[in-house]
Amino acid sequence: MRATRFLNACRGEPVDCTPVWLMRQAGRYLPEYRKLRSGRTFLELCRDPALAAEVTLQPIERLEVDAAILFSDILVIFDGLGIPLEFVPGQGPVISKPLRCAADISALRTFVPEEHTPYVLETIRLVRRELDGQVPLIGFAGAPLTLAAYAVEGGTSKNFTHLKRMMFAQPDVFKDLMAHLARAVSSHLRAQAEAGAQALQLFDTWAGILAPEDYARHVMPFSCAILASLRDLEVPLIHYANGAAALLTELGRLGADVLGIDWRIGLRRVVEALGPDVVLQGNLEPSVLYASEEYIESRVADVLAEGATARGHIFNLGHGVHPDIDPGRVRAMVDAVHRLSAST
Amino acid sequence: MRATRFLNACRGEPVDCTPVWLMRQAGRYLPEYRKLRSGRTFLELCRDPALAAEVTLQPIERLEVDAAILFSDILVIFDGLGIPLEFVPGQGPVISKPLRCAADISALRTFVPEEHTPYVLETIRLVRRELDGQVPLIGFAGAPLTLAAYAVEGGTSKNFTHLKRMMFAQPDVFKDLMAHLARAVSSHLRAQAEAGAQALQLFDTWAGILAPEDYARHVMPFSCAILASLRDLEVPLIHYANGAAALLTELGRLGADVLGIDWRIGLRRVVEALGPDVVLQGNLEPSVLYASEEYIESRVADVLAEGATARGHIFNLGHGVHPDIDPGRVRAMVDAVHRLSAST
Repeated sequence: MRATRFLNACRGEPVDCTPVWLMRQAGRYLPEYRKLRSGRTFLELCRDPALAAEVTLQPIERLEVDAAILFSDILVIFDGLGIPLEFVPGQGPVISKPLRCAADISALRTFVPEEHTPYVLETIRLVRRELDGQVPLIGFAGAPLTLAAYAVEGGTSKNFTHLKRMMFAQPDVFKDLMAHLARAVSSHLRAQAEAGAQALQLFDTWAGILAPEDYARHVMPFSCAILASLRDLEVPLIHYANGAAALLTELGRLGADVLGIDWRIGLRRVVEALGPDVVLQGNLEPSVLYASEEYIESRVADVLAEGATARGHIFNLGHGVHPDIDPGRVRAMVDAVHRLSAST
Repeated sequence: MRATRFLNACRGEPVDCTPVWLMRQAGRYLPEYRKLRSGRTFLELCRDPALAAEVTLQPIERLEVDAAILFSDILVIFDGLGIPLEFVPGQGPVISKPLRCAADISALRTFVPEEHTPYVLETIRLVRRELDGQVPLIGFAGAPLTLAAYAVEGGTSKNFTHLKRMMFAQPDVFKDLMAHLARAVSSHLRAQAEAGAQALQLFDTWAGILAPEDYARHVMPFSCAILASLRDLEVPLIHYANGAAALLTELGRLGADVLGIDWRIGLRRVVEALGPDVVLQGNLEPSVLYASEEYIESRVADVLAEGATARGHIFNLGHGVHPDIDPGRVRAMVDAVHRLSAST
């Protein structure tokens, strides 16, 4: 049951109870992760298949989640593209030479998965072997807008003014960048599926920074193209957008099998906007895990009730697990999802 | 006409053309502002009534906007409350001793406008005298959630985990903090109106970080109480929320005369959700001002068309003016608003 629950739900097929996994389920809130991470940079961990596989597997037993997600980062493709990347402690990703003009874009290299990120593919093979069918493995990549935001801003940003300046003042340059990134993301995801990933998630963390008409014009065509290019793979395609409450119509047209929804809009509202045929993933407010187990359970019940209005529902947080969350609360949440959804 | 346009629109009464002002219209994108600011800290400028009045007036002639907004900051009340505040260049507001527990909240002082921010009231008196009825003056304050976010996080934040930890793990402490801030904001706004502010705007910059049910439970009662407490003043009350596309129903129940809307949701969608009786303010994507004047004009036309579906419309950006925007583009935008709305 556990082995098939997640993939069945992705396809809108019957399940014994609602499957659950968490964004950043392998990460800093787990002491066993902090131990492995200690003395290594984040990228060193991503680039070591044995360690990355171990980190990927850490939450599977401890939390009883119904899917594993590859331990990696959306920015691992940057080196191959010719965009030098560092993770600076306390600051996150830093791109020392951000992309700002046409020449920067035309200097980008073609991303070749086997050559530039062989460690990702090897990690996937190792994890699949270790999991031995216990739960499926999800591969992932960043969506072009989110990748462009990092590449153009040079890191995280408050108002994304460099990115938007390019979008509005040099729309053709912006388009070339998005097209290049979309090709890279498509190769990256295809290679992951070929190495053994059984579902693919496209993360558009920054989808919510744009007005709907700008999302539709400057972003949507590229995310659609990626999803369409992977259709022949026959693995479920999940699109996660953050802060996208005003973009529901657009999200419904992306061509994803599953829409991952952040915590700021009720799943019932998504079903009202897109119809009951959608399959949704989400969307508990991650900070609810600071509350008591009793309260967590009541909020899990709310999300399950909203999710039940869709054709399929995969429980998740609306964003990643915060690093200071007690793993015991996470486990209590997972158990509540399974218990409450099995009894209804 | 210019003298009454903004206030008439706030009341949903007829206007000769759509009034326009901009959040952060007095600010760093103006060379005359940078000149005055040079050699002074931001708070020194806020606390000097003659200079703050001059800054408030700078955009009025240059841009031909239809309202002035007090040059000040939402955090000026912190000193009076006993929360030490600094503005660190490149970092923004920094609160060296953030509020984290019940004792921190009970140590807060009562905010007394005449005693703690007399310079705000004096600035308002000076501006009113200088304006001499040319355009009205808007006063403002931060909404309790946004103030609490700064006070608890200690500055700007990415995930607001300290704030949300308090909200979910210590809901009674959070409630006391919100109640204290709501009383302070109410006094602050009332004093501004009594000194001469002709409209009042409550800024909830961080409204969009919460799930609708958490906004409704933990935030809305306090914003409602502030607006209700000012109802006898007979000045228009504007509520601005950022990133609040999923909170429209709740915003409609706040009791504001005007709803300020960010750029991420079309005004037509707001009218569809709340009915045609609403008065809206907004909501051009601020980064559109990086584009050509021709393109800016086309986007102004779009916003005007959407705004025309409401009972009243005040044109504004969906957020503040970016510091690196060309003032010429801002003026072109203002002119386009007046020209296009007068001819329709």
